[in-house]
Amino acid sequence: MIKNLESMLSTNILGMKRSAIRELLKLTQRPEIISFAGGLPSPDTFPIEQLKEICLEVLNEDGASALQYGATEGDPALREELVKLYKKQNFDIDIGNLVITTASQQGLDLLAKVFIDRGDIVICGLPSYLGGLSAFSSYGAEMIGIKFDEHGMRSDLLRKVVEDLDAKNKKPKFVYIIPDFQNPAGVTMPDFRRQEIIDIAHEYNLLIVEDSPYKELRFEGEHQTSLYVLDGNGQVITMGTFSKIFVPGFRIGWIIAHKDIVDKFVVGKQATDLCTSPFVQKISARFLAKGYFEENLIKTTAMYKEKKALMMKCFDEEMPKEVTWTKPEGGLFLFMYLPEGMDAAKLFQRAIKNNVAFVTGDVFHCDGSGKNTLRINFSYSSKPQICEGVKRLAKAIREEMEEM
Amino acid sequence: MIKNLESMLSTNILGMKRSAIRELLKLTQRPEIISFAGGLPSPDTFPIEQLKEICLEVLNEDGASALQYGATEGDPALREELVKLYKKQNFDIDIGNLVITTASQQGLDLLAKVFIDRGDIVICGLPSYLGGLSAFSSYGAEMIGIKFDEHGMRSDLLRKVVEDLDAKNKKPKFVYIIPDFQNPAGVTMPDFRRQEIIDIAHEYNLLIVEDSPYKELRFEGEHQTSLYVLDGNGQVITMGTFSKIFVPGFRIGWIIAHKDIVDKFVVGKQATDLCTSPFVQKISARFLAKGYFEENLIKTTAMYKEKKALMMKCFDEEMPKEVTWTKPEGGLFLFMYLPEGMDAAKLFQRAIKNNVAFVTGDVFHCDGSGKNTLRINFSYSSKPQICEGVKRLAKAIREEMEEM
Repeated sequence: MIKNLESMLSTNILGMKRSAIRELLKLTQRPEIISFAGGLPSPDTFPIEQLKEICLEVLNEDGASALQYGATEGDPALREELVKLYKKQNFDIDIGNLVITTASQQGLDLLAKVFIDRGDIVICGLPSYLGGLSAFSSYGAEMIGIKFDEHGMRSDLLRKVVEDLDAKNKKPKFVYIIPDFQNPAGVTMPDFRRQEIIDIAHEYNLLIVEDSPYKELRFEGEHQTSLYVLDGNGQVITMGTFSKIFVPGFRIGWIIAHKDIVDKFVVGKQATDLCTSPFVQKISARFLAKGYFEENLIKTTAMYKEKKALMMKCFDEEMPKEVTWTKPEGGLFLFMYLPEGMDAAKLFQRAIKNNVAFVTGDVFHCDGSGKNTLRINFSYSSKPQICEGVKRLAKAIREEMEEM
Repeated sequence: MIKNLESMLSTNILGMKRSAIRELLKLTQRPEIISFAGGLPSPDTFPIEQLKEICLEVLNEDGASALQYGATEGDPALREELVKLYKKQNFDIDIGNLVITTASQQGLDLLAKVFIDRGDIVICGLPSYLGGLSAFSSYGAEMIGIKFDEHGMRSDLLRKVVEDLDAKNKKPKFVYIIPDFQNPAGVTMPDFRRQEIIDIAHEYNLLIVEDSPYKELRFEGEHQTSLYVLDGNGQVITMGTFSKIFVPGFRIGWIIAHKDIVDKFVVGKQATDLCTSPFVQKISARFLAKGYFEENLIKTTAMYKEKKALMMKCFDEEMPKEVTWTKPEGGLFLFMYLPEGMDAAKLFQRAIKNNVAFVTGDVFHCDGSGKNTLRINFSYSSKPQICEGVKRLAKAIREEMEEM
């Protein structure tokens, strides 16, 4: 073996850890475990018959270009279809504002590549999506977390942090926000809070990153306006992905931004993977063009609505009154608050023994807080698994409370 | 638009340019142009009928996991199949030594992410693959180029550079080598030269990166031993890809290394794209398991052998005697030397007017040398296009010579 490998590694990789969630998921793959841990969509939502039809079409009609290298910006037909979707949400864009990424994790990586030097500041929510935190930290970003209220990131605290930085002649590279059915909190930011944040962005010339993988999965309440649309000044970068609203296995995401910013993402992507698979892009473009996407989304949303309602009912029946949880209007996750002082990591060990799994909430807090919180996924498990899993989890929590 | 965008960008992105080749390729996409510029495989090698069969099988038998998230390390079945292929080449590995990447460009990006801090030294060939140079430079690597002879990178010059660095207490992070049918030079490194380089690596505890996308495309001469096999001490990282030997459109590559190094690549990949598309991985695994891969490779190699022979014949007939070129035993490229003092960039403009394209050789030289060289691809064009394209190129060269 080569000697002194550690001394040869980059500063960035030395600071990176294996994803806590993905390592945890390995523990939870025993078949007897009911897992609320992952962020997996239900495989029952995968449109297998339609994909069989489309795969044959793509190979018959467009095989030579589907199997060849493609443009770094992405397949033009897919970009056109996505632009159509966003125009329905009042985005004022054309395909020059949209670059395809190898799922949204590559979008997050490129965001860091384009903007972050070691020591740069990024503002995020407390809590915030772990994949975002990992990507930014992997380039040496210093994360500043902003506490949540029931409307998501608190704009008063954001303003204070930005003002304090400004007084020290510092500025965050961007503010990372997941406005719809936030991962992990399950909270949606209402329009008035979005406007407050956009106002701060305009006042201080800040970039806002709007990560929105779940927005289309709304099963109740009112659609809120995208930060991109509220801004209208090229200060918002919106990220999307097919992973939760179509299939994760194609690894297709996208970034929408001002053309000058898109240009930087394209340059970064050229050095990163040249292009995203044209084969899966062309399949996806046809899936959208045929109207299958919206059809499948309606089915998916209805399914998740039922699963979420069932989980709420089971919680109401099973959980000790000291435990509370968020009530998402869409998406895949809710967030649970254990009694103050209870350690979710300790609960996790007991839960695994009881054959039920979740993700501890602390991993989503860049400041290490949230020790008494946990993230629960309601999209993946079947209905009987949801009922039985909640029983097991409630039992583990009660046992843990007795020992406190 | 946000104000002062440039001031918000990372040092790395400010140093990156759009890929010269990919920008050039846009110029050469007019249908009347015969392009020897890209590195594209022939679409006639794409096994469309077999892929139709396999896509249906994967969706019928394995749809739920093919369309779901997958392991960061890659699909176990695909890794097993690749290990079998490499064992035939005497690699002493198991699947723990192999991680799937989103084509080899992601492998190059991860290599930089894992090893490079701004200012670190990387040694490469003069010339060397542009995608490698771009990926390393994008992390701030300082490239030192080593001149070639007819056996590839000169080991005497490599030793001298390493000795000189050692005297200054410096050390390159790795030496980047493309031993088989090198891109762009088309040169293959014989075993004795490989051994000399491995000896230097052992003496100075260096890492060697063996980028080998074309090795399986040998149409004449003897198979040479992989640097990984010659080393046997965990000091070589071998990179492979399906892009030239199966299809580029799936974006599947891999890295083979000591398990301690693979572990770092997995950590880096988690933050970069979580996993490579399980759908295309599962299709590829079945393509290998059914024996279609080797069958298709035989067909591909035979086709490229004929195209290369035809190009050599046309060169012999058409080119002025002052022009020379390498005679590759495999792969997709050859390298051409124009008369000393002729500028390939100037020739390019004339060639485009004559409706033929190539890539200027200087972009492959980290020190900006190679002004009188050019890279010619012989895999993509049809046989009539090869004959006509060589005529047009020879005419452009003669015209350029008359003006010198």
